Amino acid sequence: MQTNYNLLKERLRKIADINYASALLQWDQEVFMPEKGAEIRAQQLATLAGISHEESTSAELGQLLNTLIDDTGLTEKELRNVKEALRNFKDRIKYPTSFVIEMSSTVSAAFNAWHAAKTGNDFSLFAPHLQKLVDLKLKECELLGYDAHPYDALINQHEPGCTTAELIAVFEQVKNRLVPFVKQVLANTQPDDSFTKLHYPKDKQWEFGLDVLRNMGYDFMAGRQDISSHPFTINFNSRDVRVTTRINENDLCEMIWSCIHEGGHALYEQGLPFDDYGLPSGEYLSLGIHESQSRLWENNVGRSFEFWSFHYKQLQQTFPEQLKGIALEEFYKAINKVAPSLIRTNADELTYHLHVLIRFEIEVGLMEGKIKVSDLPAVWNAKYKEYLGIEVPDDARGVLQDVHWSHGSFGYFPTYSLGSFYAAQFYHAALNEHSEIKSEIKAGRMAGLLQWLRENIHVHGRQFTSQELCRRITGKELDFNEFMTYAEQKFGNGS
Amino acid sequence: MQTNYNLLKERLRKIADINYASALLQWDQEVFMPEKGAEIRAQQLATLAGISHEESTSAELGQLLNTLIDDTGLTEKELRNVKEALRNFKDRIKYPTSFVIEMSSTVSAAFNAWHAAKTGNDFSLFAPHLQKLVDLKLKECELLGYDAHPYDALINQHEPGCTTAELIAVFEQVKNRLVPFVKQVLANTQPDDSFTKLHYPKDKQWEFGLDVLRNMGYDFMAGRQDISSHPFTINFNSRDVRVTTRINENDLCEMIWSCIHEGGHALYEQGLPFDDYGLPSGEYLSLGIHESQSRLWENNVGRSFEFWSFHYKQLQQTFPEQLKGIALEEFYKAINKVAPSLIRTNADELTYHLHVLIRFEIEVGLMEGKIKVSDLPAVWNAKYKEYLGIEVPDDARGVLQDVHWSHGSFGYFPTYSLGSFYAAQFYHAALNEHSEIKSEIKAGRMAGLLQWLRENIHVHGRQFTSQELCRRITGKELDFNEFMTYAEQKFGNGS
Repeated sequence: MQTNYNLLKERLRKIADINYASALLQWDQEVFMPEKGAEIRAQQLATLAGISHEESTSAELGQLLNTLIDDTGLTEKELRNVKEALRNFKDRIKYPTSFVIEMSSTVSAAFNAWHAAKTGNDFSLFAPHLQKLVDLKLKECELLGYDAHPYDALINQHEPGCTTAELIAVFEQVKNRLVPFVKQVLANTQPDDSFTKLHYPKDKQWEFGLDVLRNMGYDFMAGRQDISSHPFTINFNSRDVRVTTRINENDLCEMIWSCIHEGGHALYEQGLPFDDYGLPSGEYLSLGIHESQSRLWENNVGRSFEFWSFHYKQLQQTFPEQLKGIALEEFYKAINKVAPSLIRTNADELTYHLHVLIRFEIEVGLMEGKIKVSDLPAVWNAKYKEYLGIEVPDDARGVLQDVHWSHGSFGYFPTYSLGSFYAAQFYHAALNEHSEIKSEIKAGRMAGLLQWLRENIHVHGRQFTSQELCRRITGKELDFNEFMTYAEQKFGNGS
Repeated sequence: MQTNYNLLKERLRKIADINYASALLQWDQEVFMPEKGAEIRAQQLATLAGISHEESTSAELGQLLNTLIDDTGLTEKELRNVKEALRNFKDRIKYPTSFVIEMSSTVSAAFNAWHAAKTGNDFSLFAPHLQKLVDLKLKECELLGYDAHPYDALINQHEPGCTTAELIAVFEQVKNRLVPFVKQVLANTQPDDSFTKLHYPKDKQWEFGLDVLRNMGYDFMAGRQDISSHPFTINFNSRDVRVTTRINENDLCEMIWSCIHEGGHALYEQGLPFDDYGLPSGEYLSLGIHESQSRLWENNVGRSFEFWSFHYKQLQQTFPEQLKGIALEEFYKAINKVAPSLIRTNADELTYHLHVLIRFEIEVGLMEGKIKVSDLPAVWNAKYKEYLGIEVPDDARGVLQDVHWSHGSFGYFPTYSLGSFYAAQFYHAALNEHSEIKSEIKAGRMAGLLQWLRENIHVHGRQFTSQELCRRITGKELDFNEFMTYAEQKFGNGS
């Protein structure tokens, strides 16, 4: 006879099958779909989303979860899975169908309006849609419920257990410590990185990127890389995790670090326990933890002197003319140049967080009603002047630069910074436990680091909250000091 | 208020969304999926198949169809859609879940056994599985019901309305007229085609194949070509129809004619009415009619003197060394060389049907109990000796060559020949109506032919049976004489 827990597994796996089928349709849409296929593809995705929603909110599932939550025969891990699945179930049933439909059509219209607004550099085209989205998000906060702050409900969708109060405390430190530190760094002469903007042929970049992924330990038997307009990682189970990249022939850095970044995400997904497919213990923990993996590889490893001590030879052999006479030390400095910029996705590893700080302050202000949608461009530009010291020339490169809000994604941006801060702590802990990791990386061997990440992070799936995981690994909760220490060591005067 | 017909459309489109999502998963599996992804992919496909089956056999759908069948307010086309959907519904509800599960697990085991048997050239490994499949197929015939012959039920799955008696009559003619004609053709000296077996580099073949597809009128904004181990066409709606090919660097012909063949299938799918997505009127008519489109392009057009009068120049420019000194006439003869061969998929356009004849006689014999599974190799080899005049050296190249039976596909092979016979009739009708088609093709313009196919065949979807369609176009039913006339004109002594 099937136990109730096995029945739950069956139901959760069925939902996973539907959701990952959708994911394949989305992957294809970004990578290979011919353009005329878009209309019906959207409809097919909507149909699968509807079926998934029905399955995820069925009375039978609810009953099963409510029976299992009191089942004393479950192992600790099984009980965690039941609790997490019940939490998801309770959240999902809070959405009335009418709300889902309204949100979905608002997002469709908002996305088109955002696209037109960005292209035409005209915020007013997007403003009424954004207002409607803000109103709907506030309604969503009420539907979901929260203890202290409506924004808590939004954060929780991406970073379970994280509160607005915690984020405010973290970003206070970003403001009080990182902002002045960046000014201090910028007072020094910045390195010349003009050689990274020469012509770097596509095919050679592509091959180099594949080699880097291979060296990191990405399993090409359980994944593949393709080209898309925005790099991303997507998975259909832990044995089929795909990455995409883009290549700019006039910028060596774009593809390399997108490969390393997405590779970090993909190593996490490939490391999730295959046997727990569809269960919380087989899923990534949170966006912040996901981002900790991509950023640890991208910055802590991928912009380190050790990493390039090994890889620079190969890079120079690949592009002998472009990199002629450029010493490793010079290359290392160039790829770590700090410079305030308008666009978040192009930012260096320090100023990046000032972009997120601005976004976080604005999102909280919008939810609290203290910032009006109509004032956004002015608020945005003032903050860029204040924190980054730069003038925003137009809204296309300002408040309109990112797509996220038009998708209704609020409470998402902060996880990008959380990822870097966790990464600093995790990498520090890894080096503490295994001081040989750096010398291994210098010799091109990254298996030691990967094994540490697998054992300490990947294998646990969603069995803990981020804070719990962080405590297990580092003995303490999220601690911005560690990021500052890392930043000061790398970018401070003594470096 | 939604009319009942609109409610039906919604239900049928939902089922189509699920089935075409499955199709994308299958396409990906053949083309891009990393190998470790196979296990969960199979499970995801099974889940979608289950959901599709539930939706297709729901009591609500049955009720709606039974109400609509008596709705006097429907247009003729709407009524046809209701009738066809009801026919499908009635067939699907005949399958008890236990049967579906048994068939599915038998097929999985049979496929693996067939693969081992073919690889090891050992029919005995496959025999017990094939026996089980034959028994299950007979049970399926009983479940579905039939008037005259159990095999009718199987044919009907692929060629609605076609009977065993009709097929017996057609293949009698193949036996009595085509078999002796092939012997007569073979009595003449056959052309030298050794130059087609030189080394033809992959990339250049690939580009030439894309050009041929473009010239045929295949819309790359609504499709794409990729590489797979067996060429196929697959569609997710009429605006996303994809083809695959394979390239043999030591055989010029393999890729070219797979492109033209799959291109013919794809033009049919791209020509189905987009607005009828998910409805019978938006779906292909039958496998025979589908194959008529691929074979019309592959053989009647793609192996014609007119076609190569235009394309040979380009081919020669692409492969100047390999084709140096080979005149168009010589090339044309080489690509129309008739030679009995062991493997159906490599056969020329005449002996091809002798392979199908053998397969048809065996399938009917198996269903009638007149041929025993254990006797199959001997029966197979005797028929190859009788009809094709060749000795079968081993079962791997004999009775084990094709995968179809291991998939439980019986009643499928005959449609390959029906396709060619319909193609001869359709092409004849097109030329009768538009005598300029041949000279257009000679000038590289195929739009006239494509338009005729669109208007006479593609646009109708599944509104008629194949015989009805054939009568509308040619004024008569399937007529093997037309194929023989075509064959005699092309391959006879006077050619």
